[in-house]
Amino acid sequence: MAAVDLQAVLDGIAATLAPRAAAGAGKVADYIPALARVPAAHFGIALCTRDGTQAAAGDAHQPFSIQSISKLFTLTLAMQTLEDGEIWQRIGREPSGNPFNSLVQLESERGVPRNPFINAGAIAVADRLVTHGDAKRRLLELLSGLCGETIAFDEEVAASEAATGYRNIALANFMKSFQRIDNPVEAALDMYFHQCSVAMSCAQVARAAGYLCRDGLHPLDDSSQVVTERQARRLNALMLTCGTYDAAGEFAYRIGLPCKSGVGGGIVAVVPDTLSLCVWSPGLDHSGNSALGMEALELFVGATGLSVF
Amino acid sequence: MAAVDLQAVLDGIAATLAPRAAAGAGKVADYIPALARVPAAHFGIALCTRDGTQAAAGDAHQPFSIQSISKLFTLTLAMQTLEDGEIWQRIGREPSGNPFNSLVQLESERGVPRNPFINAGAIAVADRLVTHGDAKRRLLELLSGLCGETIAFDEEVAASEAATGYRNIALANFMKSFQRIDNPVEAALDMYFHQCSVAMSCAQVARAAGYLCRDGLHPLDDSSQVVTERQARRLNALMLTCGTYDAAGEFAYRIGLPCKSGVGGGIVAVVPDTLSLCVWSPGLDHSGNSALGMEALELFVGATGLSVF
Amino acid sequence: MAAVDLQAVLDGIAATLAPRAAAGAGKVADYIPALARVPAAHFGIALCTRDGTQAAAGDAHQPFSIQSISKLFTLTLAMQTLEDGEIWQRIGREPSGNPFNSLVQLESERGVPRNPFINAGAIAVADRLVTHGDAKRRLLELLSGLCGETIAFDEEVAASEAATGYRNIALANFMKSFQRIDNPVEAALDMYFHQCSVAMSCAQVARAAGYLCRDGLHPLDDSSQVVTERQARRLNALMLTCGTYDAAGEFAYRIGLPCKSGVGGGIVAVVPDTLSLCVWSPGLDHSGNSALGMEALELFVGATGLSVF
Amino acid sequence: MAAVDLQAVLDGIAATLAPRAAAGAGKVADYIPALARVPAAHFGIALCTRDGTQAAAGDAHQPFSIQSISKLFTLTLAMQTLEDGEIWQRIGREPSGNPFNSLVQLESERGVPRNPFINAGAIAVADRLVTHGDAKRRLLELLSGLCGETIAFDEEVAASEAATGYRNIALANFMKSFQRIDNPVEAALDMYFHQCSVAMSCAQVARAAGYLCRDGLHPLDDSSQVVTERQARRLNALMLTCGTYDAAGEFAYRIGLPCKSGVGGGIVAVVPDTLSLCVWSPGLDHSGNSALGMEALELFVGATGLSVF
Repeated sequence: MAAVDLQAVLDGIAATLAPRAAAGAGKVADYIPALARVPAAHFGIALCTRDGTQAAAGDAHQPFSIQSISKLFTLTLAMQTLEDGEIWQRIGREPSGNPFNSLVQLESERGVPRNPFINAGAIAVADRLVTHGDAKRRLLELLSGLCGETIAFDEEVAASEAATGYRNIALANFMKSFQRIDNPVEAALDMYFHQCSVAMSCAQVARAAGYLCRDGLHPLDDSSQVVTERQARRLNALMLTCGTYDAAGEFAYRIGLPCKSGVGGGIVAVVPDTLSLCVWSPGLDHSGNSALGMEALELFVGATGLSVF
Repeated sequence: MAAVDLQAVLDGIAATLAPRAAAGAGKVADYIPALARVPAAHFGIALCTRDGTQAAAGDAHQPFSIQSISKLFTLTLAMQTLEDGEIWQRIGREPSGNPFNSLVQLESERGVPRNPFINAGAIAVADRLVTHGDAKRRLLELLSGLCGETIAFDEEVAASEAATGYRNIALANFMKSFQRIDNPVEAALDMYFHQCSVAMSCAQVARAAGYLCRDGLHPLDDSSQVVTERQARRLNALMLTCGTYDAAGEFAYRIGLPCKSGVGGGIVAVVPDTLSLCVWSPGLDHSGNSALGMEALELFVGATGLSVF
Repeated sequence: MAAVDLQAVLDGIAATLAPRAAAGAGKVADYIPALARVPAAHFGIALCTRDGTQAAAGDAHQPFSIQSISKLFTLTLAMQTLEDGEIWQRIGREPSGNPFNSLVQLESERGVPRNPFINAGAIAVADRLVTHGDAKRRLLELLSGLCGETIAFDEEVAASEAATGYRNIALANFMKSFQRIDNPVEAALDMYFHQCSVAMSCAQVARAAGYLCRDGLHPLDDSSQVVTERQARRLNALMLTCGTYDAAGEFAYRIGLPCKSGVGGGIVAVVPDTLSLCVWSPGLDHSGNSALGMEALELFVGATGLSVF
Repeated sequence: MAAVDLQAVLDGIAATLAPRAAAGAGKVADYIPALARVPAAHFGIALCTRDGTQAAAGDAHQPFSIQSISKLFTLTLAMQTLEDGEIWQRIGREPSGNPFNSLVQLESERGVPRNPFINAGAIAVADRLVTHGDAKRRLLELLSGLCGETIAFDEEVAASEAATGYRNIALANFMKSFQRIDNPVEAALDMYFHQCSVAMSCAQVARAAGYLCRDGLHPLDDSSQVVTERQARRLNALMLTCGTYDAAGEFAYRIGLPCKSGVGGGIVAVVPDTLSLCVWSPGLDHSGNSALGMEALELFVGATGLSVF
């Protein structure tokens, strides 16, 4: 990989895809006004190598709503805070084979979500973080520390999510009916709706995820472990098998990297031991993943030969 | 039937089953304290013939929580208030083949409950009644008028249902996520939790259901139709196919009468053109129907030969 | 009912619906050539009262493929042959809430079909009949005895069913994998495919089903019980709750009679204690029931006031 | 990795686990006699590096029934023979979230199996291979060429699979009912039952899978590509997301390597660009994977630091 000019690769990808973003590829999420009014014509990409080199192209510095990408960071926070048993007692680690907000499996599996990256699983993680106190502040501190810049919630987005999140409210109450939620449903959901509203840019997300390509080492501080090496590997494994809803197989087949996507159009990807990467384009494909984001990752893997397989 | 002494039949059934109620047959619903503390040792039975003759035995005059039996009366109220299309546009008329509070079918059928007698369907009916205004008052007026005595909610039960009804809150929010609920979820649920809390005795329920054996004619007023003859037949049909959760086939097979049961241990049954009947015993079987109530109905059918088949 | 001229009712229904049959209402089953080539333009109706009076109109004497109507007669044969426990140990009695040939419930319920009127349930009944010997001959004897005319299989239809019945072969093997089938799968299916191929006319079916409106008494022989009174009632109950696939609720709601339908376009209906009825028109609605057959039954109930509710 | 003595690692693992195999860890598959009589007390492990170095310990040279490991090789054969579209038109690439032999998803997804590594998917691949002719011979040629030794079917095992494979017969007929199988069901199943019966040793399987750690290059012939580099990566991706039934997430989380398991107790694993590995121990855990095999892979990853994440 030494010979690859990563900046040139990103420039090439942006040159190829930005015009298609302008032409409106995919469909912007419209379930809340704050997301619906984001123009489709955005494309950004940024990366951060294991040794701290950064590269970026397109709208890489414009903040977007990270949405489900936050599930990666709340799970990280849970790994820092809780014993393994405390996390995995109420959440599985298997791909779900169903849409991200499905209630079907939750019924047959008695309120235990398949994995922490579907909505039900992330709400269960949020509940556990709430139990341990000050969850919203701790998440912002983690993210701000990881990228070295102040990260905040978008309160308008959080309020919209809460006002229209009937499916998530249903999921939380359903788990509560199986005694799988410790706190009042409202408290767990308040954390969940806030984490979804975090606004970050591609450059910030790529930097923040740096510990996943550094065996858990803090991206900005070589003397600090964000998580253990073993935990970092396991986060990557969960991203690869469960990080992109019911397109995880397709991502593995076509891209071959651990990824976590969000309906805001962002996707974070990790090349273990090498680099972390974030792409953003708001138009989604039918599986709810950024349409051009997925193409960008394919182009990146094709150009660099980087893949875990 | 003329030759049957109905009072003697009820006395015989009560003599047979009351000792078994005292011995604690079945399992009293315990999901809220107000239900859990009802002693299992109750057995009551009452009937009201087409021409107004009444008979009763056992604890036939002690009020109990009618719970899902209320679904019969709210659907009656909806039939009085709404056009057919308005009711059946968002609710089906088929047996569900799943437990009364299942979310599975609701997902694959995009928020349209299978029938008005499962929880989701009753919440959808409640929502429609709320849209038309003053739903709680109108339900009490209907019930009080039907039995000629004042009927009221048990506010303690309603509050308990609301405080612990996570599964029902999930169902309502889930339907709302498919745009199947007009009103704020809280308003539809407030009506639903109140209707479940109505307290009535066997004698009152048997009398109130009299219109179902009188082609829709008011049980206490021959000059007034509660519903049309056609609607009365259809309510009976819905009770027979959908009125007893996922034991509807078993009820039809063993008893052969339209029935609607509740987790408070009550079951109302109708012999079309002949009589209406209510039995109450708090211990439930595995399907959530009163264990001795079902036996009582079998004994009644055996003794009288009354069955629709 | 005494005043109703049943012949005139049938004539009126045929006059109303035969032109619509000629215009091609519904869609003829086309999964095998022998069914696909039946012209849609047929409409027949026939009835037989409790005391043996017959009436008929339209194509009431033309044989058609009774298909799933046979499930009623094989269950009758099983009731004659087997202990109750032997039948109901491997078959349920509840509506399925799923299409007639679904495998989903069969998996979660470990090979036990919901009821004897879905395909899996009928195959399980056929298997039991095969175990007791000479099943095909015994079915023809039963049917021939009931209508007083020789009834036979249509071997071409049976062969076509066998050659293309992949879904039924799947159902049978699936049950066998749960050890729910005694005989080689081929033997159970041979019986099943043959029973589906039986050819009878409306007049024959109406007469054959007469025991269901005579408390089990043979339609042509007052000294012989086909089944007990209790069994006859239970057959009627099963027909009402499970006899018309996933439209059982709709049939109960709109027609209110025990019915059993087949994809050949026939529907048999029973007015307990009064009469049995068969209507035939090959065009099916989306639920697999005869479109005009269902309308005919509604007209009949409207004209006569006969309904169990 | 250079510094790791791989032979010593394997010896250590065998020393740790062979006694537990002798003590009978897990449960030997018993659905056919030929598998049931294999003693649990076996443990073998073998590997083959990218440059052809081999290492082995325990029962590494004893043949066992590779069962579902064959699905990896038939998919390889399909990739050699067919256009991409021809393969993926009738088979998905997503984890199933259901047991390997489930019919549920197959019904809701209209006969299209989730991936080629569940039974239904492998039967669909077998069908395609049969269409292209001489499938059984070609599979044996592929396997024999890959390991440089003659590989054969165990005809006793194949016959037993055929005689008792009701679930697989159901799967094949079910797909056929959706027109997803080209050939007579018997022909597709004959191929499938034979591929499951292939007998190979750990050393043979590890060598045969060598192309998956060599970018598709033949393990014994540097001048020949078994599949393209891209195809090799994709096979690895499919193994990681779908190769171990509904424990794929658990394997990724704990082991982090592409794996394919079989009910004979074998598991093949790949470290891309580095080595291929096979472990065998007949006792299975509750997910149907070799209990000690999974532990062996964890020990291997722990000792060598090899993992894709």
